[in-house]
Amino acid sequence: MGDRYASFANSGPGRGLVKRLGLPDPPRLRRYRPGDPLTEGPVLLGAAPGGRLGDPVRKLLSAAGVDAIDEPLADGGHGALIFDATGITGTTKLSELYEFFHPNARSLRRSGRVIVLGTPPGSAAGGPEATAQRALEGLTRSIGKEFGRGITSQLVYVDPGGEGALESTLRFLLSGRSAYVSGQVIRVGAGNPPAPADWQLPLAGRTALVTGAARGIGAAIARVLARDGADVIALDVPQAGDALAGVANDVRGRAFQLDLTAPGAGERLASYLSGPLDIVVHNAGITRDRTIAKMDPAGWQSVLSVNLVAPERINEALLAKDLVRSGGTIVGVASIAGIAGNRGQTNYATSKAGVIGLVQSSAPGLLAKGITINAVAPGFIETAMTAKMPVTLREAGRRMNSMAQGGLPVDVAETIAWFASPGSATITGNVVRVCGQSLLGA
Amino acid sequence: MGDRYASFANSGPGRGLVKRLGLPDPPRLRRYRPGDPLTEGPVLLGAAPGGRLGDPVRKLLSAAGVDAIDEPLADGGHGALIFDATGITGTTKLSELYEFFHPNARSLRRSGRVIVLGTPPGSAAGGPEATAQRALEGLTRSIGKEFGRGITSQLVYVDPGGEGALESTLRFLLSGRSAYVSGQVIRVGAGNPPAPADWQLPLAGRTALVTGAARGIGAAIARVLARDGADVIALDVPQAGDALAGVANDVRGRAFQLDLTAPGAGERLASYLSGPLDIVVHNAGITRDRTIAKMDPAGWQSVLSVNLVAPERINEALLAKDLVRSGGTIVGVASIAGIAGNRGQTNYATSKAGVIGLVQSSAPGLLAKGITINAVAPGFIETAMTAKMPVTLREAGRRMNSMAQGGLPVDVAETIAWFASPGSATITGNVVRVCGQSLLGA
Repeated sequence: MGDRYASFANSGPGRGLVKRLGLPDPPRLRRYRPGDPLTEGPVLLGAAPGGRLGDPVRKLLSAAGVDAIDEPLADGGHGALIFDATGITGTTKLSELYEFFHPNARSLRRSGRVIVLGTPPGSAAGGPEATAQRALEGLTRSIGKEFGRGITSQLVYVDPGGEGALESTLRFLLSGRSAYVSGQVIRVGAGNPPAPADWQLPLAGRTALVTGAARGIGAAIARVLARDGADVIALDVPQAGDALAGVANDVRGRAFQLDLTAPGAGERLASYLSGPLDIVVHNAGITRDRTIAKMDPAGWQSVLSVNLVAPERINEALLAKDLVRSGGTIVGVASIAGIAGNRGQTNYATSKAGVIGLVQSSAPGLLAKGITINAVAPGFIETAMTAKMPVTLREAGRRMNSMAQGGLPVDVAETIAWFASPGSATITGNVVRVCGQSLLGA
Repeated sequence: MGDRYASFANSGPGRGLVKRLGLPDPPRLRRYRPGDPLTEGPVLLGAAPGGRLGDPVRKLLSAAGVDAIDEPLADGGHGALIFDATGITGTTKLSELYEFFHPNARSLRRSGRVIVLGTPPGSAAGGPEATAQRALEGLTRSIGKEFGRGITSQLVYVDPGGEGALESTLRFLLSGRSAYVSGQVIRVGAGNPPAPADWQLPLAGRTALVTGAARGIGAAIARVLARDGADVIALDVPQAGDALAGVANDVRGRAFQLDLTAPGAGERLASYLSGPLDIVVHNAGITRDRTIAKMDPAGWQSVLSVNLVAPERINEALLAKDLVRSGGTIVGVASIAGIAGNRGQTNYATSKAGVIGLVQSSAPGLLAKGITINAVAPGFIETAMTAKMPVTLREAGRRMNSMAQGGLPVDVAETIAWFASPGSATITGNVVRVCGQSLLGA
């Protein structure tokens, strides 16, 4: 939530303005329903000469039943533009981007997709290639701000050897699952992860633990993981009893009441489990907003304990007893406040920056065990919490992003489901914002 | 420049609002004049138990004539709060931050300073320490947004072994030189760089090349480097002749007219030089703003050529002939548009993201030669270019940051002078924004 923006949006004239904003109508975003095709129109492929991802992508799309074309439709109507930029080995070749995107910039349908595929600068063959590959980020982020109409734009860096690991990510990014994800940089590692037997039920046979599952984003996560085939254990504090039972019921899962900050909580959870988990989602989180000058010690401590210390301790307890299976995944829920900081949220921002730290510091060790760990960082998501915000602050948060609207809990959940897919087994240490490309950054 | 914000700020009601903003008066920022003390009040030191930087910092400040105290002044009036967080080896110890900043949050003078010192997560002794150290970023960025009154807040990660390498950075951050730098994460490497004989003239005896030096930010860079003791070679295109001669004259330096995009420009520059350079500042840059749909090929190409390809080629030419001395530094000028992307600037953002790529991909190889390379990323800086922007877009750019105003060319120049100091010889691969902690991020 833009603090500086918010302070003027909450001023006398600001309040009036926000009501009368007269912005273009926020586009209606394409969101996923089971059975939907991946895109609504053909995917136009482009490539800089010498790239290594064009062929694998073409085959993958064809097997997935997507119409992939090399010549643009005369009247537009493309569902996506995918450009293989791995052939850009030096800065003078960046003009290939212009050659592809200039003539096709207006050819996308609403909620279309732009995906640029590159080589991670750290894995490039040399300095000039690394420089040019790093430059791609400026293009994709600018396109995300420029194209509008619900069109998202991402940069996907694929490690050499990761040519066979792209499918879960392309399916996520092309589909309505990624409706509110834009301007992101995603890294896919080397390897050949197993394809799910059924891409409609990628999580079949997997057991997922979701903390804070009684309400809001947590409930949406439980529902989406269950929809995708997972057995869900919905966890929340005892006070959330009825709501928690309701969610567990909806998803035909189990409810487990536990205060994760209580001493020995990790051990209690470990004894509750009848077998190892495939998916652990640390969604439970609280806010206690106050400037640090006015914050009491309990307000600091409780936020740190719930949002950061508890996930860390739960990971330790589960991993100590091998209760996360090889091939499994752990997902932390960070926040754009943990990236950009926020006025009145020193506690929350510290905890959420710590979640990013937990993901980044754990990833290498977990990779050796065949476990991935990633974070989502939600921006403005429409929940009971944001519904209580003052109208102008709420409108500011909603509008100040490339989608000109707030996201939905399901958007966060879909991103987590993508991380949890068996096909995402080479994706680790990523922090992906679900923020509609919010202006608020670091 | 907030594109989404700008589009509504330029709408009918937005235009009225921005005029009547009624925001708190932008604070008058403390800026450096030679002879100024580093701070205007005593520096309050704090530390988490077990930290390794408290003693070196205390000695350094004392030698620099700064009053460093351990007990807060009863009525406030501190010039800075410096907290050594290197003792925070796990997330439960993050409460040390609250213990220090809560009681002292209101004790700073206008244009005061908050500096948190930590250990780079990648250099931490283990996962728990890495997680906790990463969390510091959420705190410092939130404080930067919370404290107001021209107070800046930074996180400085100091590699183990870098305890003796802090002075140039603390001098920069405490002083008025860093007036418009806030919310940044800086990394100081291990080593014991030489202290300048005179901290008032840290660049004495050094030769600096500044490209695009005829006007605006480039002219300010030439002046600040010269003020700090450097011999300056001011370079610009032949068409800038008179303005360039004026700047060179002002700084008692040399003017060199050269089109850096011309074939053989690197070689012409190399032959012009009578000896190796200590400081190379790639400031020359242009914009040709258009959406990519409307952009002509020349608009794409010229921006990429001037902003990215030329610096890359010049580095190659200089380094091939050993024309950058060991102990020297190279500085690229990126932009927040290169970090966050910007509507209408696919070319510019790509070029500036590429500048970041050039810095990051070159740093390891150059370190082996004793040369550092870093980038500044300016936000909204008051120049002839921004003066021509529509009033509402200009006001938006000016206000949407923690300083509630635009920066000055001198702010960018001071940051470059800090990178160029002999005392900064262990700082490389950094990208530091000079943006007043602009909301616009990645």
